[in-house]
Amino acid sequence: MASRMMLFEMARVQHTLSSIGAVLGWDQETYLSPSGGAHRAEQLTWISARVHEMGVSDEWRSALEQAEASDKGEDFKTTANLRELRRAYDRATRLPVELVARASKAASLGQQAWAKARQTSDFNHFAPHLRELLDIAREKADRWGYQDEPYDALLEHYERATNTAAVAALFEAIKPELCRVSAAAVERSATGRPVLPPGPYPEAAQQQFNARIAASLGFDFTSGRIDTTTHPFCINLGPGDVRMTTRYDEADFTSSFFCVLHEAGHGLYEQGLPVEDFGLPAGTSVSLGIHESQSRLWENHVGRSAAFWEHWYPEACACFPQLEDFPLEDFLAFIHHAEFSPIRVEADEATYDLHILLRFDLERRMLRGELAVEDVPAAWNELFRELFGFLPPDDRRGCLQDIHWSKGGFGYFPTYSLGNLNAAQLYQAATQDTDVAAGCAKANFGPLLRWMRRHIHAHGATLDPAELMQRATGSPQNADAYLAHLSSRYL
Amino acid sequence: MASRMMLFEMARVQHTLSSIGAVLGWDQETYLSPSGGAHRAEQLTWISARVHEMGVSDEWRSALEQAEASDKGEDFKTTANLRELRRAYDRATRLPVELVARASKAASLGQQAWAKARQTSDFNHFAPHLRELLDIAREKADRWGYQDEPYDALLEHYERATNTAAVAALFEAIKPELCRVSAAAVERSATGRPVLPPGPYPEAAQQQFNARIAASLGFDFTSGRIDTTTHPFCINLGPGDVRMTTRYDEADFTSSFFCVLHEAGHGLYEQGLPVEDFGLPAGTSVSLGIHESQSRLWENHVGRSAAFWEHWYPEACACFPQLEDFPLEDFLAFIHHAEFSPIRVEADEATYDLHILLRFDLERRMLRGELAVEDVPAAWNELFRELFGFLPPDDRRGCLQDIHWSKGGFGYFPTYSLGNLNAAQLYQAATQDTDVAAGCAKANFGPLLRWMRRHIHAHGATLDPAELMQRATGSPQNADAYLAHLSSRYL
Repeated sequence: MASRMMLFEMARVQHTLSSIGAVLGWDQETYLSPSGGAHRAEQLTWISARVHEMGVSDEWRSALEQAEASDKGEDFKTTANLRELRRAYDRATRLPVELVARASKAASLGQQAWAKARQTSDFNHFAPHLRELLDIAREKADRWGYQDEPYDALLEHYERATNTAAVAALFEAIKPELCRVSAAAVERSATGRPVLPPGPYPEAAQQQFNARIAASLGFDFTSGRIDTTTHPFCINLGPGDVRMTTRYDEADFTSSFFCVLHEAGHGLYEQGLPVEDFGLPAGTSVSLGIHESQSRLWENHVGRSAAFWEHWYPEACACFPQLEDFPLEDFLAFIHHAEFSPIRVEADEATYDLHILLRFDLERRMLRGELAVEDVPAAWNELFRELFGFLPPDDRRGCLQDIHWSKGGFGYFPTYSLGNLNAAQLYQAATQDTDVAAGCAKANFGPLLRWMRRHIHAHGATLDPAELMQRATGSPQNADAYLAHLSSRYL
Repeated sequence: MASRMMLFEMARVQHTLSSIGAVLGWDQETYLSPSGGAHRAEQLTWISARVHEMGVSDEWRSALEQAEASDKGEDFKTTANLRELRRAYDRATRLPVELVARASKAASLGQQAWAKARQTSDFNHFAPHLRELLDIAREKADRWGYQDEPYDALLEHYERATNTAAVAALFEAIKPELCRVSAAAVERSATGRPVLPPGPYPEAAQQQFNARIAASLGFDFTSGRIDTTTHPFCINLGPGDVRMTTRYDEADFTSSFFCVLHEAGHGLYEQGLPVEDFGLPAGTSVSLGIHESQSRLWENHVGRSAAFWEHWYPEACACFPQLEDFPLEDFLAFIHHAEFSPIRVEADEATYDLHILLRFDLERRMLRGELAVEDVPAAWNELFRELFGFLPPDDRRGCLQDIHWSKGGFGYFPTYSLGNLNAAQLYQAATQDTDVAAGCAKANFGPLLRWMRRHIHAHGATLDPAELMQRATGSPQNADAYLAHLSSRYL
């Protein structure tokens, strides 16, 4: 009991430290002056060293061991907290300091090399870094341990208690239908996308509109804010402080708008975590696949629904007068447009997952040693042509487009598609509740948010993603709802 | 040598930690959401505990002692660094932990009580807190040690190597002339202040204008920025990262403008400190009285000069078209207006120091035990009437107007007037250089900045304020230049 309280207190302090790092990181992306970068790196290095130190300290280990020994399993939450703290401790301590340092250096050099390689579309410049990053990833996987293949251990880092084979099975199962729906959607869209009335959609008006909608969905602006960055994100800086960012295109207000809905989905999850469990697994989000389910839910299931715009389109017209002569049905066709693009981050709902299938396949083969680094561009292009029917114009818009590999983030990509699948399955389950369904039909999403609060947010990380989904929806994770959603939206 | 390097490295790390606290503090004032305050306090508490811990640790003490023992005084900067690190160590270790905790709690409660007392103009609500804060200040002074009176030890905290008697002598010497100049200036102004053409002066245009001028004076925006806060300030977050803030009044652009010039003066000082000495006294500002000399120099000697506006007024007119029919001479009369106001922060150059004389006198008597807390409002009003010729309308606009005492900041106020005196003395000395004088006459302030860089900024905290002033100007600190400046501006 004493050791458990000590452990939990250490975990809270460690999380407070991490949250200081989060403030420094947020500021780095939003307001830091160019010349402040070097000192910011010093500050961040100091903080992350302390966070790591605490989590692998003898005090921590001994408190954890004693707390485990004295836990009788009477309290579900306590047991879950201990289990997850043990998982994190094992993962942290299984990597020797030298490997952590090597990984950190390789990620830093890798990102720089990748940025340059992408600029000049020169894969060879990045290739040696990718090799080193893969070596490190394989060594990490070996040290963390895995059942079937190294990729399991990497995936586990983002999506706990999942394995490669299960993800592969899901992806294989949806592939034919995805290809069919996306091709049909793209073909239908090709007959002509309505042209959004020309801008400018002034940034200030976009900010006002976005904030008004985010607030109406339940994002609490007394506990958060929206700022502007090149790459949008959402970050939790501690209780009462969840911040999201977006970027603005004055020619097309829907770009920042859907971005804010997406990030607000992440933000609503973070704001819905039990604040009394701050710093403990019970107060923390469980996985990227669940996190992404929340962002995709609000972005796509809510924000692209006809009911949503039937309610909000008049307000959009008031904010952006040029919309007044653009009928709602044209606007809906505009936001449901589908098109094959070489770039993942520009992809629409109908084609997005094809980008993930491609990356998952290549990552897995690279980790298994079945795909050599020098063959990555050719393999990328071949698979891209198979899925999309044409070749990327160059590596910059092909295998060099994403930052993830340059930081060693192998195993991250599949969580985007898991998020899509989870979002659809959760939305389907939630709308079986008549209040939720009635609300959604009238653009009143309060009942939907309460459903997510109760079935997802309130659990923190006490349940594995698969079990969380099973309990919330009554079914194992599956792609039925998602495929049905895509069909109904696009066909 | 080894111990010195270790000590200096510890000092740099400690300063990096402090700079993390500075980021947290800056964010708290600028962007933190209301609900994030409690967690922010946790983060700040953790950081300041570590900063304190490091500075009083056995490793620190032993490295300091060894470095001192092995210092042969061959290198001026090293010796100065060691002397100032010793001064800081002694001040930090002379206060027992319980006293620090008591002070921190009293400051927190004191600020809350003061805010409420000011709102309702109810001194009695604040009185018990002021008593406790004075008790603590006296105990601190006793532990720090002083020569003549407790106030010495408190003043030393903000203005090192200065004593109360010296400040009192300066203030006594200027009082009659200050009273004469301010009365005459107010009388002359009373014949009618030109009315600034009505607003709005749009915030965006003010931001643009302010930033353009600050940059032209030498503030480096690749190493800094301007944000918006209720109470303007300037803060150094580490090398390459100096941030200032202001607030906007759309009816009067000069409000934010002079505020930015003032904070830019602080910022230019911070940006001019030797970056290679970051974390050491040689890379740190020396005192509040010197810091304030820099802000007042750019705000008043530069920014309110005729030469400045002869150059910049056309640009102001371009930014704010309503100025076009407002002649430059009227504008100068507008910004040189003098008026007796009960509020210090609204006071003009001609009357500002009277507010400081008043506070210094009361603080000193309180600390000596000659003025009981319950008698503060009456004493304030009496002295105010003597200096200003009328009574403050109430305590809210009298003895309750400033935050300083509520945080235990006794000894801070006189540094504002020391700043005014220093600014005038430095400006006079600098303009004896023909390049500087010729530059200032043509609104080219580059030579003036370079003079300050060389004579003030470059020294960090290696010289005591009095010696710094003596070396820079060739004379001891005195009020001649300041009184001459006020006379020439106002009479």
